[in-house]
This record gives sequence, C-alpha cells and structure tokens, in this order.
Amino acid sequence: MIKVGINGFGTIGKRVAYAVSKQDDMKIVGVTNTKPSFEAKFAVDSGYKLFASFPDKKDLFDEAGVPLAGTVNDLVDEADLIVDCTPSKVGAENKEKLYVPNKTKATFQGGEKGHVGEVSFNPLCNYKDALGKDYVRVVSCNTTGLTTTLGALDDAFDIGKIRAMLIRRSADPGISHKGPINAIIPDPIHVPSHHGPDVQTILPHLNIITTAVKVPTTIMHMHSVMVELNQDVTEEQVKEVFRNRPRVMFLNTKDGIRSTAEIMEFARNLGRPWSDIYEITVWEDSISIKDNELYYFQAIHQESDVVPSNVDVIRAMFELETDPMKSIQKTNKSLGIKS
Amino acid sequence: MIKVGINGFGTIGKRVAYAVSKQDDMKIVGVTNTKPSFEAKFAVDSGYKLFASFPDKKDLFDEAGVPLAGTVNDLVDEADLIVDCTPSKVGAENKEKLYVPNKTKATFQGGEKGHVGEVSFNPLCNYKDALGKDYVRVVSCNTTGLTTTLGALDDAFDIGKIRAMLIRRSADPGISHKGPINAIIPDPIHVPSHHGPDVQTILPHLNIITTAVKVPTTIMHMHSVMVELNQDVTEEQVKEVFRNRPRVMFLNTKDGIRSTAEIMEFARNLGRPWSDIYEITVWEDSISIKDNELYYFQAIHQESDVVPSNVDVIRAMFELETDPMKSIQKTNKSLGIKS
Repeated sequence: MIKVGINGFGTIGKRVAYAVSKQDDMKIVGVTNTKPSFEAKFAVDSGYKLFASFPDKKDLFDEAGVPLAGTVNDLVDEADLIVDCTPSKVGAENKEKLYVPNKTKATFQGGEKGHVGEVSFNPLCNYKDALGKDYVRVVSCNTTGLTTTLGALDDAFDIGKIRAMLIRRSADPGISHKGPINAIIPDPIHVPSHHGPDVQTILPHLNIITTAVKVPTTIMHMHSVMVELNQDVTEEQVKEVFRNRPRVMFLNTKDGIRSTAEIMEFARNLGRPWSDIYEITVWEDSISIKDNELYYFQAIHQESDVVPSNVDVIRAMFELETDPMKSIQKTNKSLGIKS
Repeated sequence: MIKVGINGFGTIGKRVAYAVSKQDDMKIVGVTNTKPSFEAKFAVDSGYKLFASFPDKKDLFDEAGVPLAGTVNDLVDEADLIVDCTPSKVGAENKEKLYVPNKTKATFQGGEKGHVGEVSFNPLCNYKDALGKDYVRVVSCNTTGLTTTLGALDDAFDIGKIRAMLIRRSADPGISHKGPINAIIPDPIHVPSHHGPDVQTILPHLNIITTAVKVPTTIMHMHSVMVELNQDVTEEQVKEVFRNRPRVMFLNTKDGIRSTAEIMEFARNLGRPWSDIYEITVWEDSISIKDNELYYFQAIHQESDVVPSNVDVIRAMFELETDPMKSIQKTNKSLGIKS
C-alpha cells in the first residue's frame, strides 16, 4: 500500500483524497491545510489525519479546537508520495523546499509550469512516460480535456491544424470573491492562450492554437474544437473513436442537455461525491465534418476531470501497474466511471 | 425630407428614431408600439407621434391616457419609408400585409430571413446594391460586426478560410425574463451557426464558418476571429486597414480595457444616448499573425451597432446620396462617430 499525503486540501486535494481512499493499492496517510477552515474541519470529520501547512500557524488550529497530527514536514516524512494541490507556483517551491530534500516523490497540478515534473501527464496519452518517475505534473482540467479527445483523434486519423476556442468558467462554485459578474474577458488578449502549448507538453507533434475568454459562470469550461482532417473521415468514425475512448462521455441536446447547466444536473443525478463528472463530456450531436474539417463542442468539469489522472499517475510512478489500460480501468471501476 | 416611420419602438426602433431625427435629409413622422408601455410613453415624451401597432388595441392607450395619432395603417400611409423594428418574423408578415399593398418602402432588421429584402445591407460593403431599392434588410449586429472587419480584410488582402467563434450575450440589459443565469449554451449545437451564411448574404465569396455559444452576460457579443492569409501580411498592415475602416474603433488592454465591462464604461464616458457604442470595437493588442493566420478579438454592442446602417440604407434607397463614403461620413458626423 503506497502511503499518499495530500498537500493542500482544497478543491482538487479533497477530491484526490477521496479517490485515493477508494483504491486497494494506495491509501491516504494525511492531508494539510493552511488554517482551521471549514475544509480543514471537513478533513478531520472525514477521518483524515490533518497536518498544518505552516509550522508557525499550529496555534490557530489549537485555538479553533481542530486536532492536528503534526505539520507538513511530518506528512512529507511519513508519505511515500505527496500529491501537491497547493495554489499555482507554491507547488514548485514545495518541491525544492520539502520533497526533494526528503527524497519524497510528488505529483503536481496543472497550475505549475511544465518543468516542475520530469513529464506532464494524461494517462490516456502517455502513461508509460511516468513509469518510475519521481516528479510528475498532471495537466490542468482544460489540457486534460483537450488531450483526451485530441489524442484519440490523433491516434485514429491523420489530422492537421487544430483550433480550439475555450470559453472558461471564471471561478469555482464555492468562490465568492472573483468576477466577472457581467462581462466577457478575452484572456489572454493575444494568441495563443497557454492551453495550446500545454497540450504540446503531452502531444508535442500536434499543431494546435487556442484562444480563450472568461465568462460569468461557475460551472464547467466549454471548448469549441476545430480539427483539420488530412484524410477522408466520417462523422460516424469520429463518434466510434470517442465511444471507445475511456473517460469520454457522450451527451445529446435531444436528451435535453442543452448547456452546462443540464450537464451539472445530470451529474447530480449520478450521485457521486460533490456531484462530480470525471468524464470529458462531448455533445454527440455537435460532431460535424464540413470540407475536411471536424467540429465539436465539449465541456469540462474543472473541479474533477483531473481526479482519475491523479490516481493513475501514482500507480505509474510506483510501477504498481505498467499497462495503461489496466490502471485506467481499475481507477474507473473504483470511481464509477463506465469503461 | 424623406418621411420615416418606425414600426416597433423598442431596443432598435427607439435608437433608429433618434438617429434619423439627427439627419437633415430625413425626418420621423411617427412610431408604433403594441401597448402603452414605458417605451410608448417615452416616445410621446420625446415628441414622436405615436401609432398603435394593432388597431384593436387602441382602447388600451386611451385607458392609460397615452395619446395616439392613429394606427400603424395611418403611419404606413403617411411615411415614405417604414423602418420595421418588430420582432423576428413579424417584419416579413408586415411586408406582405402592410408595406407592399401600400407601396411603401421598408427596411428590415437582421432577425428576418435574408429574402425579406431585395438585398441584405452593410453600407461599408455594399451600399450601392441598395440604391433605389424598395425593400432592404439591414443585417444583424453580429453580421454587421463580422462584415465590417472581414470586408476590410477582404478588400485589402488575399484571404482564405475564416473561422469565427461567437460568444454571445444572452439578453439585452433591459430584459429580466431570459437566461441563462449560470451556464454556457452551445447555440446552435451543430456548425455552422447562422452567422457564417448570413455574412455570405453580403460577401458571398467569403469562405467562413462560425460557431456560437450563449453566456450569462447582457453587455456585448465577443468574436474570436481567425483568418487564413494567402499572402504575406504584417500585423501593422492589418492595423492600418482597420484604422482606415470607418466604424471600427481600436481599444487596448494596456489602457485598462480588459473586458466588455470596461468597453461599456468607456461608452458611458462618450455620453451618447443610451451609452451606445456604434463602432465595432477591436482590441488592437489582440491582432496577431502566426503561421499565415490572423487572429483578433472584437466586441459588438448588440443594441446599437446597426443604427448607423439603418440611416445609410434610407439614403441609398432614395438615392439621396450615391457615394457610399459620403453617406457614411454624413451619418458618422451626425452621431459623433469619428471618421
């Protein structure tokens, strides 16, 4: 049993802790939080050992009556691997300050620069690149979504230039201090957005350019994807490729799934923790080929689509499983994802 | 003085009434409304003669104490031309029922099908096509925006395939009954959105495909535009083309214009009625050329960018001015648009 510590029990951290706890080859030995917040209390109530992110802030927890098992240093000592779910850039600092000195393996999230890990990772695209590695970066929610579907198309067909427009949710549902309330923000103003180059950290040969805007919604990112085809392909062939891709789910407007709102309600019906939807949801009836170019819409549950990857990467780094599909299916089964 | 009637004194109608009233070669002889709403009262307070859209609803106005000058039939008799600003599809009905039988010229808005008019119209692209015509359709806000910038590029350069992603405001600011509140809606789910074919009603030779989503905002549409270039072009050359295009305005993120919210605040500073911004606003610092493809972001004030076209089209239909640029500059001067 690989002993896993979660550094940063927030949006991603709490979900990865749950997902790891559902596996039979790894377990959670503790999680950290910076302060005795409702999330920290939830960690304790969930039965996780809680460690203070900052040793000099231990008193805050004592005063709030939230029991600590130690500080982050203790957790790094105890764990075989740390899943770093701290805010962007903090992960890279933690690597140098905590994980490397302690010779503790670690994974990082997509907010970190690509070079924080020896490789960037999506199990569907490059599982084997992570075998035996000490430091791996799991790519962001958007990059996971793009590489999941584009990687499948790239495996199946001779594809040309890819253009993707990302319409991004501006804040997660549990956040009240961010905007915009009523505006569309081109972000960045200048192409490419970082997503295209980030896709290339996993699929370097893809010719992709991305543009992005932020809009006043908290639920899901939307991608309008355009893929030039260098061979004759039918819409049915594309559907077949996506149907056979693990962690891709088809949805249809004819079933009443007209927007991200209905996807999230569909996800609540599934009854998973936090009403998550780990799958990349592709509107089947958006798939269209015109003049040798493929068009489709997909939506990304930004809080949870990276969670299965965060499990698979641990299995790869400890070589618990060397066959990508076996790990993917094991993770899927544990989380209720149809394979 | 051409006598102009406005059928439908709403979002577009009240603005066109204002714009026509600022001209020295045409005047407003009356406007219609369906009921004695705050907009109808505003029409009377503004000094316009008010006509009931439905003869059998005259009593409603009498009961509300809102003075009528007659019904829409009287207005159609009196006017040389009707600007039809009724809801989508009603305009086509009015044409057959009211305007053709009375031999009254009429213009229509972009919500109508292309064939409602003898031509579809953007004065910057095809002013002369409307000379002497009886029925002309002014294209929608989005199509006006796309044809204004793409037409300029097409005039200046050898351009290839155009891809545009439209991120649409879902309702106008004065509307409270429409959604979404918190969702992104792919609309339509299947390419192309109607905008690409609508651009081709004016510039039929353009190879354009558009996709569109609706988002929870009331202020402005955003376009992420991608244009393949069949010749070497520099970013500076593109900027020069847009600088010389009437009704295109450059904005810059470095001036603090980061989103549609700042554009609207900039427009409020301008002090025009309803804080309108008639110009197609292009982020100058979004203009970028990579691998012979041009990228830019533009934003469209959906309530007002068609207003200048609605003036120019009248001048063309009565051949008050046969030189496009002279009409455009006359309209611009009257509305405070820099040429």
